[in-house]
Amino acid sequence: MTSSLTTLPARQFAGVVPPVATPLLPDGGIDHSSLERLVDYLIGAGVHGLFALGSTGETAYFTDDQRVEIARTIVSATAGRVPIIAGAIELTSARILETSRRLTATGVDAVVTTAPLYTLNSPAEITAHFRAIAAGIDVPLWAYDVPVRVHSKLSADLLLGLAVDGVIAGVKDSSGDDVGFRRLVAANAAAGHPVQLLTGHEVIVDAMALVGADGVVPGLANVEAAGYVRLWDATTRGDWEAARDEQERLNRVFEIVFQPTGLSGDATGVGAFKAAMKARGIIDHATMAFPTQPLDETAVDRIQNILASLDLLPDPVA
Amino acid sequence: MTSSLTTLPARQFAGVVPPVATPLLPDGGIDHSSLERLVDYLIGAGVHGLFALGSTGETAYFTDDQRVEIARTIVSATAGRVPIIAGAIELTSARILETSRRLTATGVDAVVTTAPLYTLNSPAEITAHFRAIAAGIDVPLWAYDVPVRVHSKLSADLLLGLAVDGVIAGVKDSSGDDVGFRRLVAANAAAGHPVQLLTGHEVIVDAMALVGADGVVPGLANVEAAGYVRLWDATTRGDWEAARDEQERLNRVFEIVFQPTGLSGDATGVGAFKAAMKARGIIDHATMAFPTQPLDETAVDRIQNILASLDLLPDPVA
Amino acid sequence: MTSSLTTLPARQFAGVVPPVATPLLPDGGIDHSSLERLVDYLIGAGVHGLFALGSTGETAYFTDDQRVEIARTIVSATAGRVPIIAGAIELTSARILETSRRLTATGVDAVVTTAPLYTLNSPAEITAHFRAIAAGIDVPLWAYDVPVRVHSKLSADLLLGLAVDGVIAGVKDSSGDDVGFRRLVAANAAAGHPVQLLTGHEVIVDAMALVGADGVVPGLANVEAAGYVRLWDATTRGDWEAARDEQERLNRVFEIVFQPTGLSGDATGVGAFKAAMKARGIIDHATMAFPTQPLDETAVDRIQNILASLDLLPDPVA
Amino acid sequence: MTSSLTTLPARQFAGVVPPVATPLLPDGGIDHSSLERLVDYLIGAGVHGLFALGSTGETAYFTDDQRVEIARTIVSATAGRVPIIAGAIELTSARILETSRRLTATGVDAVVTTAPLYTLNSPAEITAHFRAIAAGIDVPLWAYDVPVRVHSKLSADLLLGLAVDGVIAGVKDSSGDDVGFRRLVAANAAAGHPVQLLTGHEVIVDAMALVGADGVVPGLANVEAAGYVRLWDATTRGDWEAARDEQERLNRVFEIVFQPTGLSGDATGVGAFKAAMKARGIIDHATMAFPTQPLDETAVDRIQNILASLDLLPDPVA
Repeated sequence: MTSSLTTLPARQFAGVVPPVATPLLPDGGIDHSSLERLVDYLIGAGVHGLFALGSTGETAYFTDDQRVEIARTIVSATAGRVPIIAGAIELTSARILETSRRLTATGVDAVVTTAPLYTLNSPAEITAHFRAIAAGIDVPLWAYDVPVRVHSKLSADLLLGLAVDGVIAGVKDSSGDDVGFRRLVAANAAAGHPVQLLTGHEVIVDAMALVGADGVVPGLANVEAAGYVRLWDATTRGDWEAARDEQERLNRVFEIVFQPTGLSGDATGVGAFKAAMKARGIIDHATMAFPTQPLDETAVDRIQNILASLDLLPDPVA
Repeated sequence: MTSSLTTLPARQFAGVVPPVATPLLPDGGIDHSSLERLVDYLIGAGVHGLFALGSTGETAYFTDDQRVEIARTIVSATAGRVPIIAGAIELTSARILETSRRLTATGVDAVVTTAPLYTLNSPAEITAHFRAIAAGIDVPLWAYDVPVRVHSKLSADLLLGLAVDGVIAGVKDSSGDDVGFRRLVAANAAAGHPVQLLTGHEVIVDAMALVGADGVVPGLANVEAAGYVRLWDATTRGDWEAARDEQERLNRVFEIVFQPTGLSGDATGVGAFKAAMKARGIIDHATMAFPTQPLDETAVDRIQNILASLDLLPDPVA
Repeated sequence: MTSSLTTLPARQFAGVVPPVATPLLPDGGIDHSSLERLVDYLIGAGVHGLFALGSTGETAYFTDDQRVEIARTIVSATAGRVPIIAGAIELTSARILETSRRLTATGVDAVVTTAPLYTLNSPAEITAHFRAIAAGIDVPLWAYDVPVRVHSKLSADLLLGLAVDGVIAGVKDSSGDDVGFRRLVAANAAAGHPVQLLTGHEVIVDAMALVGADGVVPGLANVEAAGYVRLWDATTRGDWEAARDEQERLNRVFEIVFQPTGLSGDATGVGAFKAAMKARGIIDHATMAFPTQPLDETAVDRIQNILASLDLLPDPVA
Repeated sequence: MTSSLTTLPARQFAGVVPPVATPLLPDGGIDHSSLERLVDYLIGAGVHGLFALGSTGETAYFTDDQRVEIARTIVSATAGRVPIIAGAIELTSARILETSRRLTATGVDAVVTTAPLYTLNSPAEITAHFRAIAAGIDVPLWAYDVPVRVHSKLSADLLLGLAVDGVIAGVKDSSGDDVGFRRLVAANAAAGHPVQLLTGHEVIVDAMALVGADGVVPGLANVEAAGYVRLWDATTRGDWEAARDEQERLNRVFEIVFQPTGLSGDATGVGAFKAAMKARGIIDHATMAFPTQPLDETAVDRIQNILASLDLLPDPVA
């Protein structure tokens, strides 16, 4: 573990833990200046942790050298103010271990990874996979359940088995499987809450908090972080109607992701976030990682109109 | 290109091009001695090329260092007798380029890769992906279509567009989409045959040869290579009944992959091949890459019985 | 419309609207006596409506004659105490119209159906399908979104288009797509709430009520109806913690569906409900429709143990 | 069985057995006159049997009354010249039996159906389903494997079990799973050929005949039947190159199905066939069943151009 003072590292991550977008220069290089500004924006808004190198961070498109660059900047810009978990997205156990070790050397507090990619494995093999990775790194390991990208689902039973054995410290659930998530919440509670359970679904944070989620990883917080902090605060004090009202306001912002047409899933989601972040002045360029195609002007205009209608654009300079 | 003398490098690969299995030591290390023996076995049987580091070669489970080790041994054992194509299986363009360059430095003659993994891309983005990789390596690039692992299908239109522009030199089709494959064969012929089209389906080589495939990448050739050479020879001289008879014999050997029960897709397929290769004396150990689970004794016995019934086991030592 | 007094028939269905199971005799015939008792059990517990001939009611397994039998018994046993919506599950528009007319003749208050089955249709064709059915029946039409059975998803845009044009009066959402459901809730609210939106996910009713669902169709209410009524009442008075506590108790009951092993999806879900209903004395037999396989004794024992642990079994007769 | 003289009814169906399209009047009613002409066209071209009410026949869109109408016209127009198999496409066993009995009363020689639709069944349940249907009708039963519509696959083991027990007399395979089909061919041969195996893939008939298919159900034969008869004849005399040449010519005709854009799967396939049939004068109208959307003029023009280029349009009347 990274600190002898930390008695419950698995509990470091709770509340609002945004997946940090990766700002890029027009030539595709990392825009470290914008990235530092983004980290300050998020922490300034009160978020409780950072998720570096997740899907919203376009991590799969970067080399490990670039990933290390990105992690270093996030770590230095954060300066210990909040804990950082980093995604180690690679094909299989041995390759994930290589990437994980490079990332943990930058000073991140935890690593998160998925079931193997490309290969065809059984639950027993996936369990062995997580055990081997956890045994090979010196920070807590999280499991990331995102079937739309991994094409297999981590069952509640598999995750709970890893949890009670201390293999994983938390789960980021982007499965969209409510039944499974709630079973996991209940089983986790019954087992003494060995792991933290964060939802990746930013449009139902109020509902998932009611259900018992320990936090959320909202991509949209890159665009409007303060709302998620207010939302989470409302849930912690049991003001569910206030939480819902804030969520519904955020969901009107989330409509930006439905404005692009004819583009890929990655271009649509990250592209809308980056266009909005640029319009709000949080980053300098909306460039996405190669080969993701850019939004057209119509989509960008619509996104700006949504932001304007919700009073989220900066005042024009006189 | 690697040689100024090679006028048609894209046409090097035709006929029987087995995906070379990767023999492992009991501790999981590469069994170079068995690998050299396997290469000699395949070339001695008359195969026309080798496909290193494909799915049958368990490539996704290895680090790039291990992949380089494997490629080096295959290159040195081959000693120029047949051309070698190597799989560069990674998430996205930039990462595939890194892996490809390490592999081409070992002396392989071509590289093959898939559409991006994990990410959510459009056909236009996938096209740009292949163009960038081809532009960044100095050997011919092949496209590998294997939706069961990549979870997206390379359409005949996308592949033909890359072919006529000279971006790809060939396609390994493991899609199981006959309609698409035959459309691609017809379009390729109409365009002057810019690319080689190899099928990955080892149980219908006779039929795919009739349809116009330029060759086959048969995993089962690791177990019984001579049969595939005889089969392909029959198709080239138009003796379709002989080809069918040989295919049907090989398909009785292929029944080995249906003997394991309760295991993953990777354990079942590669595990049956390796068990049979060991039984035939081609490799020393049936170990599979971590975390793939081993076959049980019942499955191994059934596999040996199938081999025995087809007279494919070596005579017992007196 | 069936009644000149009903001014807002589309709004009849709200709150707890259980999908009524179909009790069967050991020979597979309809057990009308148990069905009447079940209707009385549900209405006695305070449910707000009944969903006849849904998936929990095994409707797909019955002939139209049997469906009419079942609907008649539910209508007569209900005796107007609550409104009834009936599932007309058939392949395509013309066939659904035939089934719908037979069902509406029994006196049900509304009909619910899905996108076409077996055929391969576009959103425009699916829209025309719902319009034709609505135009051909004289009760309100509901749309049923259940991709796990229909294998296509009704998008929020498609449903909202039908809603604002008055084609459908409500949606039963069993899609598991939270993002889509919440977008539909928001768009429905913005459009003046033209349709009722019921969730089919019985384990997250508290959360979906917070999100804005108008009601729930809980299969588990066949086993424990009073809990769902208490849960819904808590949501209507804004007591979200009480709602959550009740939901969590119900979810412990729901664990019965995870007890059978090795059976089909239909055998597992409906089988667990029927085994529990029989154990509680609500119906006489746990028989399922042909060819659904019965639970084994181990599964039935486990289900009874769960019920006993939650004090849901009747006292043994002295 | 329908005739005491028929000793091998299961072997009646072999060679070219086209799925008969269902010509419609502009108002959507059955165009019996065109249907009679189509039957004469097909039989005149030498086909060996007829498949009434299959997917190409748009059967799922028709009521049972309409299906009976269609079957009657096909039976009477055929006048015993070739055997007729009819599709009974319905949700589940009991409903399929009802439909099957109405169809067999029209005089068709066999019935074909799928695994249950909409429901979630296990292989054991699907086996029981076919057994119950076979036991309830007095003509041979065929199994239809079409996962793109049924969303479950009939395994070779399941089908062979039904075959050796005499439950089914044949299989129409539209699965696109070559490995499974070839395993089924081999197992069927080893078991004494209890069933006929027809492929539904009209673009690889040459290859599937080489593999051992007993016949083909080519939708494209509605447009160009003589070619399929020539193709099949070539395969029966072992002239595989002639078979391939004819197949390749037919595949150029098949390009008509790739001309429509933006339409559903059903509109595209059946729509292209009907547009071509009308252009060739085989039927009077290209109307498709509700709610399938019509082709636009551009697609129809392209289809006519393809037919013209292959000399398949009638001479213009002077």
